[in-house]
Amino acid sequence: MTRDHGGNIDWAIDTYGGDPADWIDLSTGINREPYPLPNLSAEAWTALPTKAAMAGLKAAAAKAYGTQADILPLAGAQAAIQMLPRLRVGKTAKILSPTYNEHGICARAGGWNVQEVATLDALKGADLAIVVNPNNPDGQTHNPDDILALAGHVGTLVVDESFGDPRPDLSIAPYAGTIENLFVLRSFGKFYGLAGVRLGFLLGHPSALAQIAELAGPWPVSGVAIETGIAALQDTEWGHQTIARLREDTARMDRLADAYGWNLVGGCELFRLYDTPSAKSAQDHLAKSHIWSRIFPWSDGLIRLGLPSLTEWSRVETALGADNGI
Amino acid sequence: MTRDHGGNIDWAIDTYGGDPADWIDLSTGINREPYPLPNLSAEAWTALPTKAAMAGLKAAAAKAYGTQADILPLAGAQAAIQMLPRLRVGKTAKILSPTYNEHGICARAGGWNVQEVATLDALKGADLAIVVNPNNPDGQTHNPDDILALAGHVGTLVVDESFGDPRPDLSIAPYAGTIENLFVLRSFGKFYGLAGVRLGFLLGHPSALAQIAELAGPWPVSGVAIETGIAALQDTEWGHQTIARLREDTARMDRLADAYGWNLVGGCELFRLYDTPSAKSAQDHLAKSHIWSRIFPWSDGLIRLGLPSLTEWSRVETALGADNGI
Repeated sequence: MTRDHGGNIDWAIDTYGGDPADWIDLSTGINREPYPLPNLSAEAWTALPTKAAMAGLKAAAAKAYGTQADILPLAGAQAAIQMLPRLRVGKTAKILSPTYNEHGICARAGGWNVQEVATLDALKGADLAIVVNPNNPDGQTHNPDDILALAGHVGTLVVDESFGDPRPDLSIAPYAGTIENLFVLRSFGKFYGLAGVRLGFLLGHPSALAQIAELAGPWPVSGVAIETGIAALQDTEWGHQTIARLREDTARMDRLADAYGWNLVGGCELFRLYDTPSAKSAQDHLAKSHIWSRIFPWSDGLIRLGLPSLTEWSRVETALGADNGI
Repeated sequence: MTRDHGGNIDWAIDTYGGDPADWIDLSTGINREPYPLPNLSAEAWTALPTKAAMAGLKAAAAKAYGTQADILPLAGAQAAIQMLPRLRVGKTAKILSPTYNEHGICARAGGWNVQEVATLDALKGADLAIVVNPNNPDGQTHNPDDILALAGHVGTLVVDESFGDPRPDLSIAPYAGTIENLFVLRSFGKFYGLAGVRLGFLLGHPSALAQIAELAGPWPVSGVAIETGIAALQDTEWGHQTIARLREDTARMDRLADAYGWNLVGGCELFRLYDTPSAKSAQDHLAKSHIWSRIFPWSDGLIRLGLPSLTEWSRVETALGADNGI
């Protein structure tokens, strides 16, 4: 199965050349100003993660996400996306689309009949309903009340909040654990800019989470991820500063794109989606400056861009024809 | 489901007290003189692992394990143990026992009728046959030819070589990929002493491995694990020195146990198994010196001990009544 993702930067380097360290990868929604690595204990590397360490991580995640639900740390939100369609048997999975394509890939692999639907209301009647909020790639958001109202009309409701860290007002994590058929996914790597450690969380009802925990096994995340995750999730000051910085950066990117003649379609604090005369030409143009972007097999015009780091802005501005002094 | 493992050091600390950093955990077969951490790139932490990075890890593993088989890096050999019983549907799984208990747990969770058998020959006729070589906890070894001869008499043959790094002469990794129903598991964390990074490998036939890769998803191991794994697997000098050191240490532990009145039952380079008058008393005695060990629910007398690090020997010797100057 061919999987179409952001993060295929090695393909770009093969095609356009250049030193890998010199490329600016805006093809993902991963924050490029990562959380500064904490000092890790020797045990984080050498020992099997203990239950005490896992409990510390769960507690930090519960506080950060404002929930009293059971929490299962996993090797990225992706790990939950892989496992959830295998938990229950059903016929029809409906996915609010377009969205992150792994949801459909994994549901199909789990034997579901997958239907892509265009509105929240059209998810009703599904045995498995999946919503990404805020959505990737268009940034569409849904009111928590509207999402919660779905729970009574579907079999299993999966809400993927992988890009939700800057928008706690949108999160239904506080309701996870209280509604038996609700699962909430959170990503660690995107907002904290540490996708390489592979960490994410599944929130849900204790009985269902216990089943997923069996699939995930006794050591689903690394000791390195546990200690890094605890430090980052507890650092609320870094979180607030990062949200403020990302909001300035999204406005800066939108001004740049507008001046270049691209139309803002949507986005969230971690990426922006623009309509261009030709997505392929736009991607090719940026790639020649060794800036990588995300385009989509289902659209001729759309390009998605993450936000550059502080030192990368000038190159992005030059590539998009602006003066460096914007 | 309650899972009985080594690695439950936090339970020991709760029970016997003491500073966690002060405990000597011999309850696992993890090398306590770990591979020295290499310098990791920023991308190992921040970026999604690329296909190029994964290819580098696979190549390093193929060379280290002497195989031309397809290799799937996973978050520990445990991840393979979790997934293999879900790959194919069958009726009877036979496991050469006693052995690492996760094989039975995961096969039962996958719906298999699990039979524990006592000889290689008794594995014949199984839809799924599992052998650990060298075996945990008794160190029993099997000739590669004898294992390979099984392949024609079972459905799927899984050979877990998690403790096999010091014994390439026992490995059937060179035959993986050439026999359609054969899978070989390798652990990274045990021999290299870096269980916290969660890395292991599944070797097998391309078609079967592709199915497991689908279950594992696009980013099954962390960037941190990839770079650490490549550095360690390529360092053959460290490997040779470590094997020599472990062999000296196993002899030293056997002398100590013998003088203390315990009988050697078996073991390998990473752990030793002794028969004692009472396993519980033996574990309790060591725990009072904050040394943790492994005993088994199915045996009243057996205790398994890993090998201490260079600086930990004197405390182990004192606890077992020897002069420090042995």
